Amino acid sequence: MTIIKRHMEITRTLARFVVEHDAAGISQKVRHEATRSLLNWLGCAVGGSRHETVEKALRALAPFSGEAQATVLGRRDRLDIMSAALMNGITSHTFDFDDTHLKTVIHPSGPVASAILALAERRSVSGEDFLHAFILGVEVECRIGNSVYPEHYNVGWHITGTAGVFGAAAAAGRLLGLTEQQMVWALGIAATQSSGLREMFGTMCKPFHPGNAARNGLLAALLAQRDFTSSNQGIEANRGFAHVLSTAFRPDEITQRLGETWEIALNTYKPFACGIVIHPIIDACIQLRDEHRLEAEDIEAIEAKVHPLVLELTGKKAPQVGLEGKFSVYHSAAAALIYGAAGEAEYGDDVVRDSRVTALRDRVTAIVDKAMHEDQTRVAIRLASGKTVEKFVEHAIGSLDRPMSDGDLEAKFRGLAKGILSGRETDALIALCWDIGKLADAGEVARASVPRTKT
Amino acid sequence: MTIIKRHMEITRTLARFVVEHDAAGISQKVRHEATRSLLNWLGCAVGGSRHETVEKALRALAPFSGEAQATVLGRRDRLDIMSAALMNGITSHTFDFDDTHLKTVIHPSGPVASAILALAERRSVSGEDFLHAFILGVEVECRIGNSVYPEHYNVGWHITGTAGVFGAAAAAGRLLGLTEQQMVWALGIAATQSSGLREMFGTMCKPFHPGNAARNGLLAALLAQRDFTSSNQGIEANRGFAHVLSTAFRPDEITQRLGETWEIALNTYKPFACGIVIHPIIDACIQLRDEHRLEAEDIEAIEAKVHPLVLELTGKKAPQVGLEGKFSVYHSAAAALIYGAAGEAEYGDDVVRDSRVTALRDRVTAIVDKAMHEDQTRVAIRLASGKTVEKFVEHAIGSLDRPMSDGDLEAKFRGLAKGILSGRETDALIALCWDIGKLADAGEVARASVPRTKT
Repeated sequence: MTIIKRHMEITRTLARFVVEHDAAGISQKVRHEATRSLLNWLGCAVGGSRHETVEKALRALAPFSGEAQATVLGRRDRLDIMSAALMNGITSHTFDFDDTHLKTVIHPSGPVASAILALAERRSVSGEDFLHAFILGVEVECRIGNSVYPEHYNVGWHITGTAGVFGAAAAAGRLLGLTEQQMVWALGIAATQSSGLREMFGTMCKPFHPGNAARNGLLAALLAQRDFTSSNQGIEANRGFAHVLSTAFRPDEITQRLGETWEIALNTYKPFACGIVIHPIIDACIQLRDEHRLEAEDIEAIEAKVHPLVLELTGKKAPQVGLEGKFSVYHSAAAALIYGAAGEAEYGDDVVRDSRVTALRDRVTAIVDKAMHEDQTRVAIRLASGKTVEKFVEHAIGSLDRPMSDGDLEAKFRGLAKGILSGRETDALIALCWDIGKLADAGEVARASVPRTKT
Repeated sequence: MTIIKRHMEITRTLARFVVEHDAAGISQKVRHEATRSLLNWLGCAVGGSRHETVEKALRALAPFSGEAQATVLGRRDRLDIMSAALMNGITSHTFDFDDTHLKTVIHPSGPVASAILALAERRSVSGEDFLHAFILGVEVECRIGNSVYPEHYNVGWHITGTAGVFGAAAAAGRLLGLTEQQMVWALGIAATQSSGLREMFGTMCKPFHPGNAARNGLLAALLAQRDFTSSNQGIEANRGFAHVLSTAFRPDEITQRLGETWEIALNTYKPFACGIVIHPIIDACIQLRDEHRLEAEDIEAIEAKVHPLVLELTGKKAPQVGLEGKFSVYHSAAAALIYGAAGEAEYGDDVVRDSRVTALRDRVTAIVDKAMHEDQTRVAIRLASGKTVEKFVEHAIGSLDRPMSDGDLEAKFRGLAKGILSGRETDALIALCWDIGKLADAGEVARASVPRTKT
């Protein structure tokens, strides 16, 4: 455990930064990446809005919700802002298709955007202030993540939940105009709600985590606004967040070059609707399928050399439902070879149980190879003809080195919104989202996600 | 780390117990202790209901609360059940005067009673079912606490928050009539929200923890009722609650003799409005004061031999406000010697800053003595006359060996309700509480806590 210098005042330094930061210090490039993050997040939320995870949560929450203050994205339901923040955090992560900060495997947008878009519907917030608060919230969330990753994650914490609550509190607190001391308290109230276990992966609780982080972070900011007190060292104290929830803490990751570098610039977007660690394998399978015009019936065996996390996180041999399929490298490789894609459709319950898919799935072997980085794989496919074809993926599509283009992100958005919004509604929402920095009222984006005709 | 036998199914065993348990298996003695716990809890909630901690939280929450479904105890405000659960958890722990399960230092009633009393106002629940669910919730909460205490607490977790959320989920789930599988999910959803840092002691976040546990446990039960899924091994899995939040886990503490012993029977009530570890010292000071008719001016020095936790938890040398005074063995000893009491009044901001008190406080020394148990102390007071008087407290008043009588609890209740309820209202509420097991509608207790005339 790193020794902490008490005088460093990590929590206060971060609070002061969030309260005092001038938007002029953010480059156009960083703003554009933030806008891409929001577009991708919004598409995931709209796309996930009819999933049974969402229906069940909504049915449980609605009877206790306050007045109709904010939109459940992609739906006609309106809830109080705390409940809307929870719901949108859930919807946006339900498909596990949202953004990823690869350094920490945090999904940054869910907790932060869900909290402040709900808030923006309650009190008018300009698009510029909204984008600024979003960037600051992601910065807080990811820097706190950087300071404890990977040790914290290895303990068993779902870092999107545990770090996300700080990002939501910081961003909401910025929009509420908290003082430095109130922001210190907000981060402390966030710290003491930090939660979410990796044991829940593969269940409805996984998307519950960013929702809960959004709701609890928003609550932290609202309490701090009323001078509800917490510790002044919620992050760095011996019994604070970092020491209690991690076996290592590098405070410099939080404070150094603050305002000079931006974590949102390191954000990535998933081309495939599953855990990011399987993406290189799917990428390799689709490339091999297309290059060699492979048919499932031609394939005798698939062997993938993979990073250790692949088996640790996605080692489910025989998934029974779609949600489990997302945690199965075997299903994912088989579906990619058969369909040439790994979108939400390829993780339907019916696809996971399809005999053609399960037959191919059983021919997939994944072997841990420590030479492979997290975004790499080497896949070899032995054909019935006796021939073997191979593909080495150096950087998976969607990684920082091979990012999705703006057009790719729009196409992904359209795929997600299909069947929920009309083509015209989808176009309008995409256009609005690209323009978010110029809107007089950021809440407009939320309202534009509601389908006019019942679907 | 104890090796866990997967086939033990800790979470499922506990869930099945809560779902299937027959109230007939609980003795009158245990029921009476549960009723005493509720009376004490209710008095603390009413007494705390006007504190600034409560006012601030209420002001922050009210704009987002749903319809008026449940009572904020001791007040005319009514909120949705989730917000009411949060508020009542806060009010009941604001004075740090509620009950203590000494084996784990859990304050058992706050999380459990706050969740189910709110629920009982939404759907009619008989007093008998209410009492039964309360006993089961406390059992779940304290057994989970037993399985990880003290290691979990030593890591830095506020166990009332982290274990409390399970108790609230179990009790609320029982009243909602969850199936075994739904109860497994409820405990899992509770596990993944388990939070609360000891760093927050001495701030408004401390009472926030039982409130949050009540709210989140209730949410867990409501989600599970809609078949919102979680892990089936939320407690015992390698990345579940016990392993992630503790360095040791003794699953037998959860499953052995389940239904034969009752943790509520081990509950204790505080005669003094501060951290339990200071109680022996206050007890000794009051006894010495009364026996020797001591005046502050006669006292040259006070030396207390104490358990190590006393300095760890309550070592604040120079508290500035009442809340800090509760975490100062020095202030507590001085106030006890001057006033012969350590109720809420002796922890007022004015008392903490009173020059007579601070002068005496500076003459208090606390020395760790490993021979002292947690409910013991040896206090020596050197007088201006040169004489030294001593007192050894073997078991502090309020401990299991020297419990408060029913009459003591009533007197404590009256002291807390003074200025909030009229004498007649107080009498009626006490009578209703003793009779809770026979009420047709347990929610009546909550409504009877509301003052008829504005105070």
